[in-house]
Amino acid sequence: MLLLITYDVDTTTAAGRKRLRSVAKVCVNYGQRVQNSVFECAADAAQAKMIKAKLLALIDEEQDSLRFYNLGDRYQNRIEHYGAKGSYDPEGLLMI
Amino acid sequence: MLLLITYDVDTTTAAGRKRLRSVAKVCVNYGQRVQNSVFECAADAAQAKMIKAKLLALIDEEQDSLRFYNLGDRYQNRIEHYGAKGSYDPEGLLMI
Repeated sequence: MLLLITYDVDTTTAAGRKRLRSVAKVCVNYGQRVQNSVFECAADAAQAKMIKAKLLALIDEEQDSLRFYNLGDRYQNRIEHYGAKGSYDPEGLLMI
Repeated sequence: MLLLITYDVDTTTAAGRKRLRSVAKVCVNYGQRVQNSVFECAADAAQAKMIKAKLLALIDEEQDSLRFYNLGDRYQNRIEHYGAKGSYDPEGLLMI
């Protein structure tokens, strides 16, 4: 499945930026960062469960908002991109 | 369908913040803001097309990133929320 992860954190604080970096680090092990706080992870059900558990351990539930969207297996036609940054394959190699 | 809209704009500039406000204004006519730059809009196909056209006219394609995700009609089980801000019904009334 493609697991879409959106994360809202106050990046005006050093602690917030640190949490965002930690969340990104976990996510890019399974997919890619498509926007500053939006990640797409290609994962099977077990990996998705594990990713969620890792992220929930990182965030500050009092201050941050974390949302997961399961886009299923046939997600290619569900996604449209416009503007800066080109399209990419979330199952492809991560280019840094 | 539920149209998920994620928008990446540089909010450290006044112009970027203005564009984000304009995008939010269009989106909340059809749904709700669920994170700072993430919106969920309940829309039929014609409305979705219209929302996309309106947003594409607002953004700066050189600088901003705009992504649309079609979550289909049975989207309730595709969404999980954690942390700040409770769950809500995107087809419900917008509370300001």
